Amino acid sequence: MSIITIIGAGMMGSAISWPATDNGHIVRLVGSNLNDSVIESIKKTGIHPALKCKLPENVFPFYFSEIKEAIPDTELFVCGVSSFGLEWFATEVLPFLPQDAHLMVLTKGLLSNHDGYLHTTLHYFNEYRPDLNISAVGGPCICSELIGRHLTMVSCCAAELSTAQHLKALLNTNYYHLQPTTDVIGVECAVAIKNTYAVGVALALGMAEREAGITDARPSSWQTGADTTGFTPYYNHQAALFAQSCLEMRRLVRLFGGNEDVVSGLAGAGDLYVTSQGGRNGRLGVLLGRGLSMAQIQEALGDVTLESVPITKRVAEAVRIRAKHGEVSLKQFPLLLHLDALISHQPSTIDWESFG
Amino acid sequence: MSIITIIGAGMMGSAISWPATDNGHIVRLVGSNLNDSVIESIKKTGIHPALKCKLPENVFPFYFSEIKEAIPDTELFVCGVSSFGLEWFATEVLPFLPQDAHLMVLTKGLLSNHDGYLHTTLHYFNEYRPDLNISAVGGPCICSELIGRHLTMVSCCAAELSTAQHLKALLNTNYYHLQPTTDVIGVECAVAIKNTYAVGVALALGMAEREAGITDARPSSWQTGADTTGFTPYYNHQAALFAQSCLEMRRLVRLFGGNEDVVSGLAGAGDLYVTSQGGRNGRLGVLLGRGLSMAQIQEALGDVTLESVPITKRVAEAVRIRAKHGEVSLKQFPLLLHLDALISHQPSTIDWESFG
Repeated sequence: MSIITIIGAGMMGSAISWPATDNGHIVRLVGSNLNDSVIESIKKTGIHPALKCKLPENVFPFYFSEIKEAIPDTELFVCGVSSFGLEWFATEVLPFLPQDAHLMVLTKGLLSNHDGYLHTTLHYFNEYRPDLNISAVGGPCICSELIGRHLTMVSCCAAELSTAQHLKALLNTNYYHLQPTTDVIGVECAVAIKNTYAVGVALALGMAEREAGITDARPSSWQTGADTTGFTPYYNHQAALFAQSCLEMRRLVRLFGGNEDVVSGLAGAGDLYVTSQGGRNGRLGVLLGRGLSMAQIQEALGDVTLESVPITKRVAEAVRIRAKHGEVSLKQFPLLLHLDALISHQPSTIDWESFG
Repeated sequence: MSIITIIGAGMMGSAISWPATDNGHIVRLVGSNLNDSVIESIKKTGIHPALKCKLPENVFPFYFSEIKEAIPDTELFVCGVSSFGLEWFATEVLPFLPQDAHLMVLTKGLLSNHDGYLHTTLHYFNEYRPDLNISAVGGPCICSELIGRHLTMVSCCAAELSTAQHLKALLNTNYYHLQPTTDVIGVECAVAIKNTYAVGVALALGMAEREAGITDARPSSWQTGADTTGFTPYYNHQAALFAQSCLEMRRLVRLFGGNEDVVSGLAGAGDLYVTSQGGRNGRLGVLLGRGLSMAQIQEALGDVTLESVPITKRVAEAVRIRAKHGEVSLKQFPLLLHLDALISHQPSTIDWESFG
């Protein structure tokens, strides 16, 4: 029995409470500066308002103002903030962590210094705190299935295999399976860019809906669960986009210093498979596929977090810089550049013959 | 303008008539020995009974008894029989083809001499007719979308790149895109074994349906288009199975002599993506996932062609032989061996911890 302290009480951070407590651990769930109402609900009723269910026993909620009480005797810290909260976490949370602590990062992201190179969140945090042992999990994980204790299988990575194995020892259950690896760049790069390519695969469904006369921002039938008899979901388009995504992801992982074979595993094809079939990034792809402009989509979706937008821009920028240096050819990334153009409010059509 | 002669008037063979005639070619569609009623319908009404629509102009039907009339001046022959008709094609059709003819093979399959090695259909036909230039297409192609002139992108392979390029020149249109390669073994191996792994990915949906109380052979909601609100389709299971499928497909392609990177393209991940979301092999996987035995499934499905069954048995047998010779470890193929056990009427449960 250990103490696991999760900082960031969003859906994904909080969901880790299930395998953690099922393994007999105590969980301290610390809200971020944006989570006070979540923590208040949990303190009053035990119910997580976004997950819409009671948290397991042995989960103890803390406001961010109470973080100091949540630190002592912690075996594993978990960073559960969104990619937009990384800087906040680095400056407001990292200073509290004890020397040589183990921090597991759930946050996906690739950071850019506009020099053609991209850095993982682990790298970013280690610049602030070189003493920490940092690990991460990445791969296909829909929260509602994890907290339903349905099988979920993810990669866990760290620079040292022993750190990744320590994480596995703490969190692995008969429904939550962690596969340790030291390919930090490969895993983190793949899980970040899969958000871009999930938009790409979902374009196909939007193109099919456009063909069926749907050109506004209404929900898709796959979202409403409505009858879809007679509708052709353009499977051949989807498959062509899926294959091109895998090919470009391999090239990107290699370019940024990971092992491209990660793309055939959980963090690549596995995560892309599940991400492109739903969620916010899939919705963005569908609306782009229907022919809506980014401006129309932003108006329709409102204030929703779309990780794929900054990731796509950063990756496309980095590829352009590396191409200028002659290290890579832009011809290898037709889908990435198409998506970047659409997201950057520029007209673009897919040149299918450039695929492969 | 050339003459393209398709032998085998099933759905896939006949569907090639669309890009062929759109490119200005004349198509001679020759029924196999099992297609007399199909040809009769086309001769009388122009309608293909399985595709349920009129064939394009410039498609001329021939009974198999009329094959000699369909041969002269043909630029490209197409083998459109199912994998169960390969031997018939080799002995009854190949002798009619002119010296050095170009034969494009649509039939997927891997043939076994029970020695741990598997042979492609191209290899098999070349043993009968070493003079022929044989090519093949493989990849995600749902017939109804191709004949609807919706985008379809496939690999085309031949031992000589010029043969694959000749095929592309004849059939490539603005909706049917062919990507030439000389990796015949890689493409043919990937497209054959994806049938096995499509069964594997579809297990997840069956497991989800079983959890929801469905343990008989009724159609899934994805087949009927019915309302699926509130149903959890086990996306995390699906993604774990999809990733494991890609990993094992890489190992198999390498073992049988192809380039494993083909698995990240159209013939691998792309084809698996579309095949696992529907069709007969997907249905087999769903019913196995619900816990039905092979005997129950065969009774429920009746006399339906399941390419995945012989392919799975052959591939598993070959892997066992190669493992006995110390060339590969069985531990690398937990999903293949699980599927082989289920198909071979043996009880088996998935050991998720063996994945990776």
